[in-house]
Amino acid sequence: MSLFKVRIPMRFGDCDAAGIVYYPRYFDMISRTVEDWFDGPLDWSFTRLHLIDKTSIPTARFEVDFVAESKLADVVDFSLAVERIGVSSCRLKIQAHCHGELRLDVRQTIVFVDMEAMKSRPWPDELRARMEPFMLEGAEAGL
Amino acid sequence: MSLFKVRIPMRFGDCDAAGIVYYPRYFDMISRTVEDWFDGPLDWSFTRLHLIDKTSIPTARFEVDFVAESKLADVVDFSLAVERIGVSSCRLKIQAHCHGELRLDVRQTIVFVDMEAMKSRPWPDELRARMEPFMLEGAEAGL
Amino acid sequence: MSLFKVRIPMRFGDCDAAGIVYYPRYFDMISRTVEDWFDGPLDWSFTRLHLIDKTSIPTARFEVDFVAESKLADVVDFSLAVERIGVSSCRLKIQAHCHGELRLDVRQTIVFVDMEAMKSRPWPDELRARMEPFMLEGAEAGL
Amino acid sequence: MSLFKVRIPMRFGDCDAAGIVYYPRYFDMISRTVEDWFDGPLDWSFTRLHLIDKTSIPTARFEVDFVAESKLADVVDFSLAVERIGVSSCRLKIQAHCHGELRLDVRQTIVFVDMEAMKSRPWPDELRARMEPFMLEGAEAGL
Repeated sequence: MSLFKVRIPMRFGDCDAAGIVYYPRYFDMISRTVEDWFDGPLDWSFTRLHLIDKTSIPTARFEVDFVAESKLADVVDFSLAVERIGVSSCRLKIQAHCHGELRLDVRQTIVFVDMEAMKSRPWPDELRARMEPFMLEGAEAGL
Repeated sequence: MSLFKVRIPMRFGDCDAAGIVYYPRYFDMISRTVEDWFDGPLDWSFTRLHLIDKTSIPTARFEVDFVAESKLADVVDFSLAVERIGVSSCRLKIQAHCHGELRLDVRQTIVFVDMEAMKSRPWPDELRARMEPFMLEGAEAGL
Repeated sequence: MSLFKVRIPMRFGDCDAAGIVYYPRYFDMISRTVEDWFDGPLDWSFTRLHLIDKTSIPTARFEVDFVAESKLADVVDFSLAVERIGVSSCRLKIQAHCHGELRLDVRQTIVFVDMEAMKSRPWPDELRARMEPFMLEGAEAGL
Repeated sequence: MSLFKVRIPMRFGDCDAAGIVYYPRYFDMISRTVEDWFDGPLDWSFTRLHLIDKTSIPTARFEVDFVAESKLADVVDFSLAVERIGVSSCRLKIQAHCHGELRLDVRQTIVFVDMEAMKSRPWPDELRARMEPFMLEGAEAGL
């Protein structure tokens, strides 16, 4: 089982007036992690997904625990794994760590959507097959 | 029981290349809703909270259902109510509606924190008393 | 001659770890000012401009003087006037004031563009006519 | 003479509903380029600059030409050089290129500021000396 990882430094503009990372910025980083997973190991670029195929992967649900705060210059490691693949949805487990400490613990459910019909559509077999190596042990692949 | 409301138009920069609101932007709007609640009816400004009192209200947990997508120029109504007030935490229910349709259904748990000690602290009685009118019927006020 | 005005409070998420407004956020506010001008007095909505007519108004040039810094909770007034209308371009003068003090002094040149051909196009007469009341005294209307 | 370079891919969240990079996002990238220059070759981290030394480098002026638009997935190279170092200011030349094409041509004047006194201060000699290798041929070092 593979874990997809992205390393992101916390920059000045990510921090609020309290000197810690402003939480809406984390969602940009989560979005970037998913985008890099598609562009990279899944080899199914966001250009293809959105602009060519006219599909999208909107988020249906988030559960996020902010376990510990991050500060300016922290270099945070985001990791992504798949917890469940449904017919047209996928639940991702995304965690962020820094200095061996869990900062963020996220469950994100994305859905494969046809943007013209504006409704969900089964994952293409090929894309689904590329997601499977990222499934956690014991994860379910619903059909 | 009062509901706090903020009306926010979805602007060009809130939309992604798929023409719908890019979800990280919603978290800016959620943050803004809470800030306006403190600045407005709670009369406990973020300037006081952060800069004068050296306290903060970091988010401990989010549960977010993205029920329907929003588009450019949609005027979205964010409403905030209190589901539970604990000793030093508070669970907010934030919803966004447009054209009578639920778009976003959020539970956000915030915690009152002393930024110097970097640990949680009981809500000041006065602040707690100002939050109570926003409690949903049947909501719990833990002590 | 009319001046178009938008009042924007500086929020927590607009401020950086130094406690003053993080300048990239100002450009969101400038963008919002122009969008509100189109949506409002020009009655030429961004939905029409972008999604229906497949046109756009990208920025060709900015000159920005950051005259004084803004802080959390400052309520800043953005004003917009037209300095020059060319065949397919327009130079805007945007200023931001707070407590009678000039904070930001901006010249922004926008261009009317056909997004399908990806090239500039003359302003529609009707749109141009709606811009004219916002021209500064002594401003030039090139043809 | 050295040029400082940062490579930044244009992500989904950087693009607007017209499918091209939304210009306020460029200012985040410009800010990031300057931050990485300080953190990297200048070895004068933003943590030191802001949090330890209580100084800052606000922008006094921008001149920006948007020469050509960028699109989703473009990998854009930002380069930074110094055009002029004054007593307490510095004019940077920042350009962004992609596929050999100039996209963005920026002059940014930053000022070294004491955040407690809220006024400008001469560059520390050591910091100034570390900036000098990035001066363009023919650039002026005012004293």
